[in-house]
Amino acid sequence: MLDGLVMGELVFVGLGLHDEFGITLRGLEEIRSSDNVFIELYTNFMPNFSLERLRKLCGKEVLVVSRKQLEDESGRVVLEAAEKGKAVLLVPGDPLIATTHISLRILAEKKGIKTRIVHGASIISAVIGLSGLHNYKFGKSVTIAFPQGEVVSETPYEVIEQNKRLGLHTLCLLDVQVENGKFMTIAEAVEILAKIERKRKRGVITSETLAVGISGAGSRNPIVKADVIDLLKQYDFGVPPHSLIFPGKLHFMEAEALKVFADAPADVVEAMVE
Amino acid sequence: MLDGLVMGELVFVGLGLHDEFGITLRGLEEIRSSDNVFIELYTNFMPNFSLERLRKLCGKEVLVVSRKQLEDESGRVVLEAAEKGKAVLLVPGDPLIATTHISLRILAEKKGIKTRIVHGASIISAVIGLSGLHNYKFGKSVTIAFPQGEVVSETPYEVIEQNKRLGLHTLCLLDVQVENGKFMTIAEAVEILAKIERKRKRGVITSETLAVGISGAGSRNPIVKADVIDLLKQYDFGVPPHSLIFPGKLHFMEAEALKVFADAPADVVEAMVE
Repeated sequence: MLDGLVMGELVFVGLGLHDEFGITLRGLEEIRSSDNVFIELYTNFMPNFSLERLRKLCGKEVLVVSRKQLEDESGRVVLEAAEKGKAVLLVPGDPLIATTHISLRILAEKKGIKTRIVHGASIISAVIGLSGLHNYKFGKSVTIAFPQGEVVSETPYEVIEQNKRLGLHTLCLLDVQVENGKFMTIAEAVEILAKIERKRKRGVITSETLAVGISGAGSRNPIVKADVIDLLKQYDFGVPPHSLIFPGKLHFMEAEALKVFADAPADVVEAMVE
Repeated sequence: MLDGLVMGELVFVGLGLHDEFGITLRGLEEIRSSDNVFIELYTNFMPNFSLERLRKLCGKEVLVVSRKQLEDESGRVVLEAAEKGKAVLLVPGDPLIATTHISLRILAEKKGIKTRIVHGASIISAVIGLSGLHNYKFGKSVTIAFPQGEVVSETPYEVIEQNKRLGLHTLCLLDVQVENGKFMTIAEAVEILAKIERKRKRGVITSETLAVGISGAGSRNPIVKADVIDLLKQYDFGVPPHSLIFPGKLHFMEAEALKVFADAPADVVEAMVE
């Protein structure tokens, strides 16, 4: 390397799901060969993750960066390190699905910092795989957010309605506010949708609507349960994050998968086969 | 364990992308603690994967299973091993996105074999992340298949049209026939869509249509290039697999990302901002 020509680099490394063993061999290698390692743990929740175990695993200091540092301060601490040498930013799931990471990557590239991505397992693909539903039959996905005061976003209701009209499934991610320790449960999400239904009255979410609830994706014992929402909301899904799928029309193999993997009521799923 | 009560188990382990270093630490641990390890390499193509390196990495024999064994013979060789002990089936990407794996998992569960999934990075999430486009703005995804004789599936054209009408992006995976060594290039995919356009004449795919071509997802140097399709099809995307995204309406940050990450023509992407 020429004197004075420092080649900076920022590598986004996905941690995958659940705990520190969701990282790939490639991700671990990137950590080991880096000058500075940062981690953010607020864009998604990894229920069994231990920073201490990760530090031991990679034999490096790992500095936690907050939402304030990445967003309000535009990731200055990370970018400064990446200008001087090789910096790694560890993120839950697959990187660059969260818009925060996209913004940071744009800033880095504009400063002449090279960026790379080491992919990890994503909650989206994991939840779809666990359900046994076919990936290419999912429409637009949506996040169900906690109401802000009295204001409830009706977007999830509209997305489910639009997808259903097209015969497509809807994946709903449920709000995760790691910093406040607030995680939306499936029961809360169903209640929010039912409330919108009472207002809009378009028959999108009725007590007879089938949904698939999923928790523990990436763990040894994920919970996957399909039922009509009045029964589903009484089911104990345990530790967050929770996700919810509203199926559209079903292929017969998807109906079979829901029965076998998610203990779905046979009559309900069979009536949805096209 | 009681005499005669053998507890069989089948663990689907995702290999992630590109080569053998896309496996997670959890996946590697599952291999090491298993009685039999199988691998299928036909549902997706990992350009730099070496079975020899994987064998050394995990210190185990790894048996390749063919499409014939998994599909025509209903995975008998895998299921027999999983009835007697712990069997691992390694698959490219994230498991249970391919319907073959879903079928095998249903068969296993019906035989009383416990199944688990160790997730890996998925091409779908990776390609979306590399583009810088926002995940929740993607509609239904689709695969562009090689024509069978004179018969060209028009589904991709219809899916792109439907998504565009809703302002949504379309992710197109391109046909991969690992066994025949046939991999669709971006140029071929564009040509197939243009041919359908000439027949259907609905103005979905014109020479001015913007698309994002992506190759090398998961490698150190992926290629991400956005341009109008008449220019994009002349671009060299190198080693397969290739993917293609047709953006719908763009958020201003998505337009910015396409300019910075994919060298998109500024006037074209800015005209697509809603």
